[in-house]
Amino acid sequence: MNFCSQCGASVRLRVPPGDSLPRHVCDSCGTIHYLNPKLVVGCIAEWEGRLLFCRRAIEPRHGFWTLPAGFMENEETTSQAAARETLEEACAKVEIGPLFALVNVPHINQVHLFYRGHLVDGRHEPGEESLETALLTEAEIPWSALAFRSVRFALERYLEDRRQGIFRLHQLDLPPPPADYL
Amino acid sequence: MNFCSQCGASVRLRVPPGDSLPRHVCDSCGTIHYLNPKLVVGCIAEWEGRLLFCRRAIEPRHGFWTLPAGFMENEETTSQAAARETLEEACAKVEIGPLFALVNVPHINQVHLFYRGHLVDGRHEPGEESLETALLTEAEIPWSALAFRSVRFALERYLEDRRQGIFRLHQLDLPPPPADYL
Repeated sequence: MNFCSQCGASVRLRVPPGDSLPRHVCDSCGTIHYLNPKLVVGCIAEWEGRLLFCRRAIEPRHGFWTLPAGFMENEETTSQAAARETLEEACAKVEIGPLFALVNVPHINQVHLFYRGHLVDGRHEPGEESLETALLTEAEIPWSALAFRSVRFALERYLEDRRQGIFRLHQLDLPPPPADYL
Repeated sequence: MNFCSQCGASVRLRVPPGDSLPRHVCDSCGTIHYLNPKLVVGCIAEWEGRLLFCRRAIEPRHGFWTLPAGFMENEETTSQAAARETLEEACAKVEIGPLFALVNVPHINQVHLFYRGHLVDGRHEPGEESLETALLTEAEIPWSALAFRSVRFALERYLEDRRQGIFRLHQLDLPPPPADYL
C-alpha cells in the first residue's frame, strides 16, 4: 500500500496512538488503513455417498483438484459463500449443513472454512474457474493431485468422521509450506 | 474507496472480466481492489466457574459489557487472536480451547468467532480499551447491558451447553439490527 484510498495522498507505515502494530496511515487526511485476514469458504458436498470435486482452471495450482471454495464476499454469510462458490465453480446447487473444518493459513493471511453439504439434484458441470468437475467415491479421490493442504485436511477428517458416524469440528493451524504448496 | 492504493490514480466501480460483482478497479495500473468481510475473534474465558467480562471504554457501545474480542490481525491464527484480545482488553492470560460459536453479521461485513478458554491464573484488570473487567457467575451476568447480539448468543449457548455437559458449535446469521444495536 503506497497511497491513501480515501484522499490519494501518500501513506506511511507507523504505529497509531493507542495501537500496538504499524499501520498504513495517511498523513494528509488521517485515515488508518487496516489489513486483515481473508476468509476462504467452501464445502464438502455429498451426493449418494460421493463427494464433489473441481479441477482448477486458474492459478494457483492450475490443473489440481480441490473442493468448491473461494473468497467470502461482503454482505453474505459464510454458508451463503459456500453455496455461491459451489454454484460458481461446479454449477451445482447445494444445501449447506454444519461447519466442519477451520484451517488457519497465517503465512498468507487466510482462514479457510469448510461446511458439510448435500447436492440438491446431483447435477454438476465445470464453471469458468474449473476444467472439470466430478462426484468421486472415497477410493477415487486423487490424493496426490490435491491443490491445497487445507483441502486434504478437511477431506481426511470428513472421511474419518463419516466412518465413525459422528461429525465434529476440526481445526488446523498450517505452518509455512514446502516448495510451491499453498 | 476513491483512489488506488498502489499507484494513487482514481478508481472506478466496475465488473472486471470474468467476475460477477462490481469492484474498485484502477484505470491507470489495472489493480483490482477487493473488499472482504473481517473476522472478529474472542473467547468465553472461565475461572472457577466464573466468566470473564469487559466493560467497553471505546465506541461502539461505550460503557456496555462484552466478552474479550476484536479484529483478527494478519499473520496470526484465530486462536492466537482470541488470546491476544483477552490479554489486551483484560490483561488476562488465557488458554484457548475449541471454537464454540460463529456469528455472521453480513450488514456490517463481519464474522464473529468465539472460542472456549480457561484463564491461566485468574488474574485480570482493564486494558486500554476497557473501563473495568470482572469474573462473573451466571447469576451476575448483566444481560440488559451487553454490548452486542453476538455476545448474547454466545453466552446463552455456552451456559446451556455447560448445564448439559456437552459443548457444540453454534452458528447464527444476524439480520440488520433494531435501533443502535450493532
